[in-house]
Amino acid sequence: MQKPSLPKGTRDFGPIQMARRNFILDSIKETFQLFGFSQIETPAMENLNTLTGKYGDEGDQLLFKILNSGDYLKKVSDADLTAGYQTTLPKVSEKGLRYDLTVPFARFVVMNRNELSFPFKRYQIQPVWRADRPQKGRYREFYQCDADVVGTDSLLCEAEIILMIRSVFKKLKLEDYSIKINNRKVLTGISEAIGEAGKEGPLCVAIDKLDKIGWEKVKEELSERGFGTSSIEKLAPLVHLEADQAGKLSFLKEFLASSEVGLEGVRELEEVFQILKAMGESLDFVDLDIMLARGLSYYTGAIFEVKVNHVSIGSVSGGGRYDNLTGVFGLKGVSGVGFSFGVDRLYDVLEELGLFPDDQLQSTKVLLAHFDAQAYSYAMGLLQKIREAGIKAELYPDVTKMKKQLDFASKKAIPYVAICGDEEIKTGTVSLKNLDTGEQEQLSMEACLERLKD
Amino acid sequence: MQKPSLPKGTRDFGPIQMARRNFILDSIKETFQLFGFSQIETPAMENLNTLTGKYGDEGDQLLFKILNSGDYLKKVSDADLTAGYQTTLPKVSEKGLRYDLTVPFARFVVMNRNELSFPFKRYQIQPVWRADRPQKGRYREFYQCDADVVGTDSLLCEAEIILMIRSVFKKLKLEDYSIKINNRKVLTGISEAIGEAGKEGPLCVAIDKLDKIGWEKVKEELSERGFGTSSIEKLAPLVHLEADQAGKLSFLKEFLASSEVGLEGVRELEEVFQILKAMGESLDFVDLDIMLARGLSYYTGAIFEVKVNHVSIGSVSGGGRYDNLTGVFGLKGVSGVGFSFGVDRLYDVLEELGLFPDDQLQSTKVLLAHFDAQAYSYAMGLLQKIREAGIKAELYPDVTKMKKQLDFASKKAIPYVAICGDEEIKTGTVSLKNLDTGEQEQLSMEACLERLKD
Repeated sequence: MQKPSLPKGTRDFGPIQMARRNFILDSIKETFQLFGFSQIETPAMENLNTLTGKYGDEGDQLLFKILNSGDYLKKVSDADLTAGYQTTLPKVSEKGLRYDLTVPFARFVVMNRNELSFPFKRYQIQPVWRADRPQKGRYREFYQCDADVVGTDSLLCEAEIILMIRSVFKKLKLEDYSIKINNRKVLTGISEAIGEAGKEGPLCVAIDKLDKIGWEKVKEELSERGFGTSSIEKLAPLVHLEADQAGKLSFLKEFLASSEVGLEGVRELEEVFQILKAMGESLDFVDLDIMLARGLSYYTGAIFEVKVNHVSIGSVSGGGRYDNLTGVFGLKGVSGVGFSFGVDRLYDVLEELGLFPDDQLQSTKVLLAHFDAQAYSYAMGLLQKIREAGIKAELYPDVTKMKKQLDFASKKAIPYVAICGDEEIKTGTVSLKNLDTGEQEQLSMEACLERLKD
Repeated sequence: MQKPSLPKGTRDFGPIQMARRNFILDSIKETFQLFGFSQIETPAMENLNTLTGKYGDEGDQLLFKILNSGDYLKKVSDADLTAGYQTTLPKVSEKGLRYDLTVPFARFVVMNRNELSFPFKRYQIQPVWRADRPQKGRYREFYQCDADVVGTDSLLCEAEIILMIRSVFKKLKLEDYSIKINNRKVLTGISEAIGEAGKEGPLCVAIDKLDKIGWEKVKEELSERGFGTSSIEKLAPLVHLEADQAGKLSFLKEFLASSEVGLEGVRELEEVFQILKAMGESLDFVDLDIMLARGLSYYTGAIFEVKVNHVSIGSVSGGGRYDNLTGVFGLKGVSGVGFSFGVDRLYDVLEELGLFPDDQLQSTKVLLAHFDAQAYSYAMGLLQKIREAGIKAELYPDVTKMKKQLDFASKKAIPYVAICGDEEIKTGTVSLKNLDTGEQEQLSMEACLERLKD
C-alpha cells in the first residue's frame, strides 16, 4: 500500500476544470473550422533526431527523453560511462516527448507533402512536455493549440488570423483586449536605419523587454550588446512615438526610407489593414506596435501578440510568419504563418473575469430520485424517455433516503430533481423540484420534458 | 538536413482520419454525457511507483520509462552497473508513460476522494503507450476511451452500460452486433460445481480461448493445468448448451445448485435483465454467454464483450465490475463497474462497412474563387457574411488561374465553389458551382446563403 502522488509539474483535470477547458477549446475549434482549418494529431513521441537542435541548447536540455526498452545499457561501453552522461545519452535513448506542435507539424508536412493540398490549413490541439522547473502557471505538461497555413505567402492569412482571434474572443465574451501586430522586416529595417544592419537579432531581444524593464534599461542592454550611442539615440523617437495607425505608418515610411526591406515590411502591414477593410472589419481593435518583437528568431514577416486588458495574465495568443519552417527537414521554399492560443492562460483570464457560463457547463440536468424500491422501478421506466428527448439525466442507483439523493444532486450541481413516490406512480406523474428556487410541481411526463428542455 | 521519420508503432492522423475519429469520439462523448458521466484527464506521465506492479511482469516490461533530467547517471554506482540494467533502472528513471486509463483513474479517485460525490461517474479519452512489438492493428500509442462508475454496487450501472453501447452504435448506424454478458461469480460457481473450487483463474484462461481453438484443445489445456478428467467432462453440457436466455438461466440454476456464489451470479444477471425490462428495453440484443470469461483477473461481477457481426475485426468494446480498484492505493471498499470502446477497432469496422458519413465529415462547405485582383477584393467582402451565417468558408488566398482554384476545391472535397468575376461584381452576385453535379447558378448573396445552408 502506498500513498499515490502526481509527478512534479503535472496536473489532473477534474470534471469542472474539464468542462471549462472544453468550453474554451470548443470555441477555438468552431472558429478554426469556420475558417477552413482541418485538425491533425501527431504522436507524443518523436525520434530524438527530429527534436534535438530545433529549440536551442536550453530547449535540448528540457526535452523529456524515453529510455530504450529492455537492456538499455547494452550499447554503452565502459569508455562511454567514463566520458559521462552526455556521451551515453544517445545510446540509452532514441525518442523524446514533443516539446511543441510546430516541429512535429513541419515533420508532418515534409512526410506528407505529396498527399496534402497546398495551401494547407491545419490546427492541432495536444499536450506538450518540457522538463522546466515548475512554478506558478508553468507546468511540465500543458496543452498547445496551434493553427497554421503553409504553402502561400498571401497576406489574407495574416488578416484571417486577426479575424479568428476576434471570433474566438466573441464566443468567450471577452471584449476588452488588444491585438498587437508588427512585422519582422520593419525591425530589420530599423536596425539598418539606425546604422546597425544585421543586428536585428539582439535588437529584438532587447526591445522585447521594453514593457518589463523600461527604455533606460533597454538602452543599457543595447549598449552592452555593442550598439553605438548614436544608434541608440536614433531609436528614441520610435520608442516614444505617440500616433494613430496612419501616423505610425507615415512616420515609419520616412524613418525607413533608406531600407528596402523595412519599406517592404510597412507595405505588408498596410496590405493586411487593406484586406481587413475589404472584409468589412473595423481596424479599431488592431494595434500597430512598432516595438513588438517577440523572441522567436524564426519569424520573418508579420508578428502578433494578444493581451486581455485589466487582468494580471500576460499575452494569451501570439504568432507570426516564417519563411522556412520545413527547411530543416529538407523541404525548402514553404512559407507559412501561424498562431496559437495559450489555453491555460485563457482559463485563468476567464476565471479572473468570471466569464465561465455556469449553465452551459452543467453536466446532468435532472436526477430521478425515489422513495422506495417500487418508485425506483417506476423511475427506471421514465429514464429512457427523458434521455430520448436529449436531456442529460441520471437515476440515483440505490434505494436510500431522499435526503441523501437530494444532497447528491446538490453537490453535483444538478439543477432539477424528479421525485417519484406512491402518489406519482398512482397518477403517472413526477414531482419536479428546482433546487435553485426550491419550487416543486407535480407534472405529467410531457409537461416535465417541456420544463426540462427550456 | 535529414529525412524525417516516425518512431516505430506510432502514427500521424491527417485531416480525413481526424474527422472520422472525431465522428466516432463525438458519438461516444454525447452518449456518456447523456447518461451523466463527467470527463476527466490525467497526465501522460505517472510516477513509476504508481504504475509498476499493476499490470503483471509483462506489463512492467512494456512501460515506457522517462529518463531523469540532467545527469541521470549521478545516482548510479559502479556496483549498480555491474549488477545490470534492472538494478540501475530505478536510479535513472522515476516516471513512466501511462499504460492504461484504469490505474491513473484509481489514483485520481484516491487522491480526490474528499472532493468527489459518490457514486462518481467519469469518462476519459486519452492516449496510452505500450512498448509492445508493433504489428497490424497494434500500436505503441493508441487511444483508450473508458467510462466507469465507482462507489456503488447497484446493478443499474450494468444495465446502463448496455444501453450506452446501444446508444453509441445507433449514432454510428451499426445495426448488426451482439452484446455478450456473463458474470465472474458464475465462473467461480462453475469451478466449484465441477469439483475444482478455487481454480476459476486457470478455468477462465482456458475458456477464454474456446472461440479461437475449440473445445478439444481447451480440454487438453485444462488437463495440462491439472483439471481432472471427470471435472472436464462435467463442463461439456455447459459448453454445448443451446438454449434461449430463460433456458440458460434455468440450466445454470440447476447446474450451480451447490454453489452459493454461483447462484449469486445468476441472481445478478437476472436483476440486470429485469432492470433493462423496467427501462422499456428489449432483451433481444443481449446475449448471455456462459462461456465468456475475459482475461483480466480483477473482474469480480458482470463481464461484457461486444462484437460487430460479419466483419473481420474482434471485440470493439468490453468491461466489467471490479470490487477493489482503489485498494492498491489504500482505499478499500470502493466497488465499480466500467467499460471501454476500442476506437481504432471501431474505426476499422466503420471503414469496412462503409459507414463514415461523407457529408458530415466535410470540412469547408464553400470556396470563394476569383478571376483577378478586383474579384479577389470583391470576394473578401463576401467571406465574412458567409461565415457569419455559420457556413464553413475559405477564400482562395492568391490571384491565380481559375482551374487551379477549382482543382484545389476538388482535391479538398469542398462541395461548392462561389465564383467571382466582372459580371458578379457588376450585379452584386456570385456564381455558385456545385462540384458534384457541375451545375452553376448566378445567385444573390441571400439566395447563395440559403442554398449553402441546406
